[in-house]
Amino acid sequence: MPAESPEKPFKSVAILGLGVMGGSLARALAELPDRPQVSGWAPQREEREAAHRAGVLDRAPASWRDAVGGAELLVLAAPLRASCEVLAEVASAVPDETTLSDVASLKAPLVRAAAAAGAESRWVGCHPMAGSEASGFGASTATLYRGARVWTVAAPAARHRVGRVHAFWRSVGARPEAIGAEEHDRLMSIASHLPQLAANALAQVMMDAGVRPEQLGPGGLDTTRLAASSPELWKDLLEHASPDLIRGLRGLSAAADRIADLLDAGDVEGVASTMRATREWRRP
Amino acid sequence: MPAESPEKPFKSVAILGLGVMGGSLARALAELPDRPQVSGWAPQREEREAAHRAGVLDRAPASWRDAVGGAELLVLAAPLRASCEVLAEVASAVPDETTLSDVASLKAPLVRAAAAAGAESRWVGCHPMAGSEASGFGASTATLYRGARVWTVAAPAARHRVGRVHAFWRSVGARPEAIGAEEHDRLMSIASHLPQLAANALAQVMMDAGVRPEQLGPGGLDTTRLAASSPELWKDLLEHASPDLIRGLRGLSAAADRIADLLDAGDVEGVASTMRATREWRRP
Repeated sequence: MPAESPEKPFKSVAILGLGVMGGSLARALAELPDRPQVSGWAPQREEREAAHRAGVLDRAPASWRDAVGGAELLVLAAPLRASCEVLAEVASAVPDETTLSDVASLKAPLVRAAAAAGAESRWVGCHPMAGSEASGFGASTATLYRGARVWTVAAPAARHRVGRVHAFWRSVGARPEAIGAEEHDRLMSIASHLPQLAANALAQVMMDAGVRPEQLGPGGLDTTRLAASSPELWKDLLEHASPDLIRGLRGLSAAADRIADLLDAGDVEGVASTMRATREWRRP
Repeated sequence: MPAESPEKPFKSVAILGLGVMGGSLARALAELPDRPQVSGWAPQREEREAAHRAGVLDRAPASWRDAVGGAELLVLAAPLRASCEVLAEVASAVPDETTLSDVASLKAPLVRAAAAAGAESRWVGCHPMAGSEASGFGASTATLYRGARVWTVAAPAARHRVGRVHAFWRSVGARPEAIGAEEHDRLMSIASHLPQLAANALAQVMMDAGVRPEQLGPGGLDTTRLAASSPELWKDLLEHASPDLIRGLRGLSAAADRIADLLDAGDVEGVASTMRATREWRRP
């Protein structure tokens, strides 16, 4: 095992998928003083060309096989389902030394895909808690990962690769932390998937009431921002919707009803009491 | 009536209340090239002193009566209930020429207070759709009103004052627009009060599930940001909770339940269809 360099844990990186996640990673790496060689590929030719024009890729070949050749780290920056589907094929196209990774928002499905591909000892799954309600390379930024928590998941057979993957994320300003796949996915049900669907539910009510986004203040805009997220990306995640997410939605429904009951009964102090508790929880 | 000057619609302004709203107004006025005389008062001595030290007030007397003397525009920057309660006394302390205003988030209660005070011909109520989940002068900023919609409400007898009040708000970068009090308050039930309580309800579920704010990504943080708002400020507003707000909460509850039902039934396409509709509504 080569000595770990905090500056450049991998000398060459291949990124498959150049949307917000992959594009932002390429941009962040391009800004490093001691940057690795970065090759990138996306299924859409325009995305590849946009990334190449932006000067953030050393190579942007038309075939993903050409992009992954020689990479020490290969990052699948595709939606969840695509990442699961291509993992075996991609793993078979690169040597054992190459560390495989991905950035999908759920990790248990990838654990299963890596096991099915016989790639457990080579895969370190990642989930950066960063993103955008917009999509595509055009929405990528060099600063997306700065300060972001990145959860990492690895089978025992791949533990020796985790240190370099963490160093890699630290090099772009992120805060990596190891976690178990099941624990991660349970946490995300409430911390990530629930606020997404809560924003959709709230937006639905506003829309039905004839309120337009231009009529919202900063609070209303923030609270519904996620309603602009891509349904196609989310379909993948929702295919794996956990009982925790469904329980969370039922809890949100009950909490909204409870506040309505209190207001109906004129019990403003009761509502304030809920607000005090959640303020204690939420404030910095 | 003096000719309207777009630069300086009022030569002297008194601000009663130096929290986020009043403090930010003082800060914004202090940055104008041709700034009016600004006096300010707050019930808390520390807030008065902090504003004075910040150099954004020409005068910060210990008595509100001394602060309002000679002002062409008097802005009550207090919570809703306090604004309603003091309006009559404040109106009686200043000459008829002084335009009275406020920045409370509901306008019908102020319409009633202005009528009860016999001050209808002098009052132009305002609601800037800007603010912060934090409170106090320390959370005020010179840019709070930049680009913000400011709704204005005036009785027919005060219509001749509206032009200067709009010019005043434009001078600090805001976008004033006249509206009826009832229409305004109905709109706010859904556009402002509902997202506030939705954030509290969502935060409650996360808190109950043992999720901590540090575990949230940018989306989860934005969606729950309002949960840090001051319950004491909101109690005032919730005393006037409208049937529209209660209906909105029931609607949110039903929308969350409906999404849970769809997920329970494995109907991911049904959820995606809701997401597509709200995305169309929300995206820029």
